[in-house]
Amino acid sequence: MSEFDLINQFFRSMPQQRNDVVLGIGDDCAILQVPEGKQLVVSTDTLVSGVHFPAQTAARDIGYKSLAVNLSDLAAMGADPAWVTLCLTLPENDPVWLEGFVKGFSELLVEHKLQLVGGDTTHGPLSISVHVSGFVQPEKVMRRDRAQPGDLVYVTGTIGDAGLGLEMLKKNSSEKNTCVIKLNRPEPRNYFALALKEFCHCAIDVSDGLLADLQHICDESHCGAELLASDIPLSNELKEYYGGEVDVNKVLTAGDDYELCFTVNEKYNQRVLEISKETGLQTSCIGKITEGSHVVCLDEHNAVIETSVMGYEHF
Amino acid sequence: MSEFDLINQFFRSMPQQRNDVVLGIGDDCAILQVPEGKQLVVSTDTLVSGVHFPAQTAARDIGYKSLAVNLSDLAAMGADPAWVTLCLTLPENDPVWLEGFVKGFSELLVEHKLQLVGGDTTHGPLSISVHVSGFVQPEKVMRRDRAQPGDLVYVTGTIGDAGLGLEMLKKNSSEKNTCVIKLNRPEPRNYFALALKEFCHCAIDVSDGLLADLQHICDESHCGAELLASDIPLSNELKEYYGGEVDVNKVLTAGDDYELCFTVNEKYNQRVLEISKETGLQTSCIGKITEGSHVVCLDEHNAVIETSVMGYEHF
Repeated sequence: MSEFDLINQFFRSMPQQRNDVVLGIGDDCAILQVPEGKQLVVSTDTLVSGVHFPAQTAARDIGYKSLAVNLSDLAAMGADPAWVTLCLTLPENDPVWLEGFVKGFSELLVEHKLQLVGGDTTHGPLSISVHVSGFVQPEKVMRRDRAQPGDLVYVTGTIGDAGLGLEMLKKNSSEKNTCVIKLNRPEPRNYFALALKEFCHCAIDVSDGLLADLQHICDESHCGAELLASDIPLSNELKEYYGGEVDVNKVLTAGDDYELCFTVNEKYNQRVLEISKETGLQTSCIGKITEGSHVVCLDEHNAVIETSVMGYEHF
Repeated sequence: MSEFDLINQFFRSMPQQRNDVVLGIGDDCAILQVPEGKQLVVSTDTLVSGVHFPAQTAARDIGYKSLAVNLSDLAAMGADPAWVTLCLTLPENDPVWLEGFVKGFSELLVEHKLQLVGGDTTHGPLSISVHVSGFVQPEKVMRRDRAQPGDLVYVTGTIGDAGLGLEMLKKNSSEKNTCVIKLNRPEPRNYFALALKEFCHCAIDVSDGLLADLQHICDESHCGAELLASDIPLSNELKEYYGGEVDVNKVLTAGDDYELCFTVNEKYNQRVLEISKETGLQTSCIGKITEGSHVVCLDEHNAVIETSVMGYEHF
């Protein structure tokens, strides 16, 4: 099968569910119509085999995750997902692998009403670069530089599971518990974010680790943050695994959770609880924004916990 | 130097030359303003070391080419270039290499008034995925599905040089003649395309090889094309290299030229000549669109030249 047949078969057959795509896959470029009054929001992320996912990860999970991590960036801005392009570098033309990949990718595509509008299939070591676009109303957007001293700091879901999942996979590559599932199939928080952006102006997704990501907010907003370790939401699986001796440092610096971390004025506390209930997504207040410049995490005696690694880094 | 320092140093310092970038590099997403009345045009292409360029290619040429091939897609649509994102996968953190890459990339960025608005730097085998966006007026766009029987077929520049450059590099990796330069630093035809789109509705860029790319036009427009081999524009370097015995098959199936191939009603012949003169870019009429379904190339005796390979394929 030639490169072009391969593209045609798998990618042209993906769901076409948007009427703002004037011209989709098949020309030098796609032609797209941004709705009047909306701004365009774009992000791109690459996953490399052996770096961003273990080499033995199932094709379906790789397809799912490559879109999930990009959707998560749109969620962090409060953007409505719209279009996606996919650059897929493959070591071989393996229709079975490709079918699995497309299945995982399509799951999220359908769920979030995105359309694949272009891409490139090339030969080389396995790597996936996805570019997503969405829309925001100019005044209803969440940015890293909008935190204010006094704001409450929240996170969705639980923190540290994906990091633990990776640790478990390293010990037993066929492990399949909830932490491994969280690592391979993170649920981007787009529906929650669309409700949140109505009153929240500052958010980030937790991809590098909670400490590192909240520090990004602090850097851009010129502020600090104070967290209470005991308020960091942990899953039962994680607590059981550590048997009461949770390594806070590990939890705070574990990447790949793709939960949202956001800050709101405390008058919106009730609204956070409401959308948490509406969307069925746990949210936890873990601290507050300060006048400082760094994120500090306090233990039960109000002592600062020394944290050594500021999130996962590739180099 | 950490991954983030690296990104900050090199990418945040790139030229910021557009006022339609509401929020650039540094958040989860960029926020962009598409001008009223315009449609968004997007494309993405990946270059993999050892597949799309020889591994020993200079960093500066890789940076240049990774943007050039994407700009060329915007040219093929007649789109005004605007924004770019860059996914860069690097085997190591080498500031000297990165500086070279950024220089080559920036050259074209500045020339075409683009702005880098996002990206991702990851660790892995060298590969570059670039995503470009531009604008078109809805009625002034060039598409592959707009050729009409009777249209004249044109190409810009000369054909086959990049393919010959690659052949030369394989024999002598330090070769540096005009064909090698054409391979490493193709000039995307965006300025020509912006003049062309005023009266032309159908174009493609020659990246897979002239025959293969014109066949894409024929497939999408449900037509055929008839070319005269003697009308294919060849550079003096190529003619000299082959010493009067030009291998037409090789020329027609060589990739990476990044010239434009376009079709216009013959009443626009004069306008093609005018913009060719204005932009200083050679254009050649090489044949016409037919009622058929395939591209055929005729020799000086009007006999069909058998062509074996339909362009470069990765798999």
